Amino acid sequence: MKVIIIGSVAAGTSVGAKARRNREDIEITVYDRDEHISYSGCGIPYYVGGEVDELDELAPRDPKWFKKRYEMNVQTSCEVIAVDALQKQVTVKDLQNGDEWHDSYDELVLATGAVSTLPPVAGTEKKDVFSVRTIRDADAIRTWADGPAAKSAVIVGGGFIGLEMAEQLTYRGIKVSLVERLPQVMPGLDADMAFRLYKHLQEHGVDVYLGQSVQAVTGEQAADGVTIDTGEKIAGDAVIFASGVKPNTALAEEIGAEIGVTGAIKVNTKMQTTVPHVYAAGDAAESFFQPTGEAMWRPLGSTANKMGRIAGSVITGEEASHRGILGTGIFKMFDLTVAQTGLTEAEAREKGYDPAVLHNLKPDKPPYAGGKELVIKAVANRADGKMLGVQIIGEQGVDKRIDVFATAITFGAKAEDLFHLDLAYAPPYATTKDPVMYTGMALDNDVRGTAKLITPKELDRRKISGEAFQIIDTRSPKQFAESAVDDAVNIPLADLRSRVTLLNPDVPTVTYCNSGTTGNAAQNILRNYGFTEVYNLSGGNKNYQMMKKQTS
Amino acid sequence: MKVIIIGSVAAGTSVGAKARRNREDIEITVYDRDEHISYSGCGIPYYVGGEVDELDELAPRDPKWFKKRYEMNVQTSCEVIAVDALQKQVTVKDLQNGDEWHDSYDELVLATGAVSTLPPVAGTEKKDVFSVRTIRDADAIRTWADGPAAKSAVIVGGGFIGLEMAEQLTYRGIKVSLVERLPQVMPGLDADMAFRLYKHLQEHGVDVYLGQSVQAVTGEQAADGVTIDTGEKIAGDAVIFASGVKPNTALAEEIGAEIGVTGAIKVNTKMQTTVPHVYAAGDAAESFFQPTGEAMWRPLGSTANKMGRIAGSVITGEEASHRGILGTGIFKMFDLTVAQTGLTEAEAREKGYDPAVLHNLKPDKPPYAGGKELVIKAVANRADGKMLGVQIIGEQGVDKRIDVFATAITFGAKAEDLFHLDLAYAPPYATTKDPVMYTGMALDNDVRGTAKLITPKELDRRKISGEAFQIIDTRSPKQFAESAVDDAVNIPLADLRSRVTLLNPDVPTVTYCNSGTTGNAAQNILRNYGFTEVYNLSGGNKNYQMMKKQTS
Repeated sequence: MKVIIIGSVAAGTSVGAKARRNREDIEITVYDRDEHISYSGCGIPYYVGGEVDELDELAPRDPKWFKKRYEMNVQTSCEVIAVDALQKQVTVKDLQNGDEWHDSYDELVLATGAVSTLPPVAGTEKKDVFSVRTIRDADAIRTWADGPAAKSAVIVGGGFIGLEMAEQLTYRGIKVSLVERLPQVMPGLDADMAFRLYKHLQEHGVDVYLGQSVQAVTGEQAADGVTIDTGEKIAGDAVIFASGVKPNTALAEEIGAEIGVTGAIKVNTKMQTTVPHVYAAGDAAESFFQPTGEAMWRPLGSTANKMGRIAGSVITGEEASHRGILGTGIFKMFDLTVAQTGLTEAEAREKGYDPAVLHNLKPDKPPYAGGKELVIKAVANRADGKMLGVQIIGEQGVDKRIDVFATAITFGAKAEDLFHLDLAYAPPYATTKDPVMYTGMALDNDVRGTAKLITPKELDRRKISGEAFQIIDTRSPKQFAESAVDDAVNIPLADLRSRVTLLNPDVPTVTYCNSGTTGNAAQNILRNYGFTEVYNLSGGNKNYQMMKKQTS
Repeated sequence: MKVIIIGSVAAGTSVGAKARRNREDIEITVYDRDEHISYSGCGIPYYVGGEVDELDELAPRDPKWFKKRYEMNVQTSCEVIAVDALQKQVTVKDLQNGDEWHDSYDELVLATGAVSTLPPVAGTEKKDVFSVRTIRDADAIRTWADGPAAKSAVIVGGGFIGLEMAEQLTYRGIKVSLVERLPQVMPGLDADMAFRLYKHLQEHGVDVYLGQSVQAVTGEQAADGVTIDTGEKIAGDAVIFASGVKPNTALAEEIGAEIGVTGAIKVNTKMQTTVPHVYAAGDAAESFFQPTGEAMWRPLGSTANKMGRIAGSVITGEEASHRGILGTGIFKMFDLTVAQTGLTEAEAREKGYDPAVLHNLKPDKPPYAGGKELVIKAVANRADGKMLGVQIIGEQGVDKRIDVFATAITFGAKAEDLFHLDLAYAPPYATTKDPVMYTGMALDNDVRGTAKLITPKELDRRKISGEAFQIIDTRSPKQFAESAVDDAVNIPLADLRSRVTLLNPDVPTVTYCNSGTTGNAAQNILRNYGFTEVYNLSGGNKNYQMMKKQTS
């Protein structure tokens, strides 16, 4: 059997390695048009920033290594320019000397990855205009950044790669301006989480332009900035497009393989395309949302690796199936770690769920052990209590919690299940009840209706629509004087029982404190005094004030 | 309804808080013989070490706080000296003025905790002999350690509290000797993991005496050391017993409540004892192993909190059940984090499982991003592939992985499920395939029999019993010359295919490399060449050499 794999970054090499582990008696050939193989695209910002010294650290393995270990024939600078799926044959072109030849396969794997897309604006051909995708891109940006003229840069695109680049260039002393087409950075997060990043970027000296498209790259031969929708010119010694990336489906389309709704190559759980003997894996291939089976495309190295291994198994006759993804993602931006898994509130509503929504502000470990606040936004399905998704922002302990949530969601966890987890507790690592458990408890109370939550946004919406609320601030008068929710009255928790008769138990009531715990205590008191409709404000005054700043 | 709770550390206050959240119309009284309430016992070593400045940080809440927030009447320095379960009445003694009175209850909760047990040796009454359990203990040890005479200490007991104390006293410049009765520290870990801690303690200047009991505390009025089994005297300006702790079941026994096989108070999943209207929660109560329901006792704050909340729910008529624990634990010891969940290999064998066992040595994130090696020992049930337990030692990223494993085990995960998790990947946090996924892959291969593992111990055992093995070191000749497995021959992986005919495919064969990956590649090659019985050495040469040092 002969296997040809097109592409050798994450998925392609995984296919070959797994196939070889299973069988010695097959021939494995990998073609890549690039000269770099098996590299960590996710490490590129850190190479540009200098945290990674050498390109070799991102791409530690060369064709010789794969030959030795896996008896795999990796041919770089060789582009597959045509596929004949009937004859089971590819046409290869050596990009260095122009030679062309045919090669035949029994099984073909399209691991053709994704490509950066520059927006259709004038000037992108200029010098010092960069994409962020390949090792070649990494090299080019670093060379520019190492030069004496690199004082400022415009980054186009506020997704995680753009934000990581913003951090790394800022660390190098380069002034960064960031332009994002949408009204928020990180469109994968809910707006009431993403604005925290906006604030953090500004605090670190990054100028952020939201809701703005680039009109043109300006400058003579070399870029000197961009113009945006407002007509404003933003100066930058380089322009870095971290904006668009799309699956590279050219060959797949050529052979008539079906393209999925996400624009990536459609595959079944065996990673087979609709064309016999042709597989697809990695960023070129479509994935699906594990809980529902809905098509989903997330170009990430972790998913690419997984798909590649599955394809390698299937090709060699081993039982294996792709089980789908949650779209879990994480990145670092200055002092913050930002992570998400599953659905956001907006996505959940879009898909027709009635979501229970919690903003949970809790330290990752005891304050006496150096704990810092995590902001966890969690979404559950009110119909069955199942966890739908989680977003977390914080300085430490974020990666742990997102992985625990992702694991729980994979196994179909309900909010109530989280309290029962036996997580590892010691002061250097967690609080006695981990923030994951608190999240489950509060969401479960909301789902069951025993202690309902209301988000600042929902409260605003209902007030605007004319509903009257009793809003009770349970903090101290001093805290109340500093900042409070609009229309709130101050009744410190200790006084609530004695003053409860002054309140109207039949008016919808909202309680809140700083971040939620005391608000919940007050909510319970009122509920037990027979108040008919009592909400605890999700995330408390802290979350409310952040939201107010966002919208004002 | 009137609820009386005996004990106010973690479980007791949780009962009261939850009961009050559910109902306003009940009376809640808590009696505690101590003057400190609601404190973090787990924080005591850090107070002794000075990382926590003030005792108040460990016990931030006083009776006034509980009165205000939860309308809960907490009476400190009041010991319940008798219970009459028929009359539903307790006898309370005020320890400050000696007054005694009766108080009646509708529901009674025994949150009487655990107590330190000093071994029955002479001299424990001497000055500067300490336990590590209560805030009073913490204060006494810190006062001693702050004094000018504190130059050295003997710690008796190599469980996690003993090891945390060893770290904290060492950080203060106090010379520590540690005496452990068993042949290893941390009896909750397998010996082939625990010896790494032994080594680490020695590297940090702690003298460790294993397999030694204390015979007597020496010294005139004040302790000046201990004598051990060998007759040797170990000097120390203080002697700290971190050795034994047992559930405080005195009152439970008095009223005839059943005591479980672990010695703790037997309760059902509603936290009810066998005596009507009497509950138990926290360190005094017995728990059970979640996957099997087997009785288990682990005095930990996290479990105590959980049990307390459940008891509070049940008492107030809310549906709630304890689902059991995994015995998850974690602690920090100098540069290492040590964690475990579920069963060890030894426990699994004892319980009659045929375990698949893996030692997985993997960096927690890419080396270019500062990754450091984790040593993961994982155990699965060969019969159904289900994960039974995991132990992890490493410098960073340990707490994350143990929580992911604990979550997966809670949901009945099989080894094969771990590969499919969509964990968060970015270079600052993880490798493309997380160590959790590698663990699942390798264990699953062993369970399925496609790539079997053998532990160094098992290899030794089989060699001693007379079996012949072909042992193949797949590393470079230079590495082989430095250290190798006994009786191994060196065939670097790149040469294996060409030299395979020199080997006998019918002799049991073991492959290995440094830590496992190349050994697995070699194993696959041989398997594909028709070798009938090929094992990859679990954890490779690194793990083997560590084990050899341990046993020599």
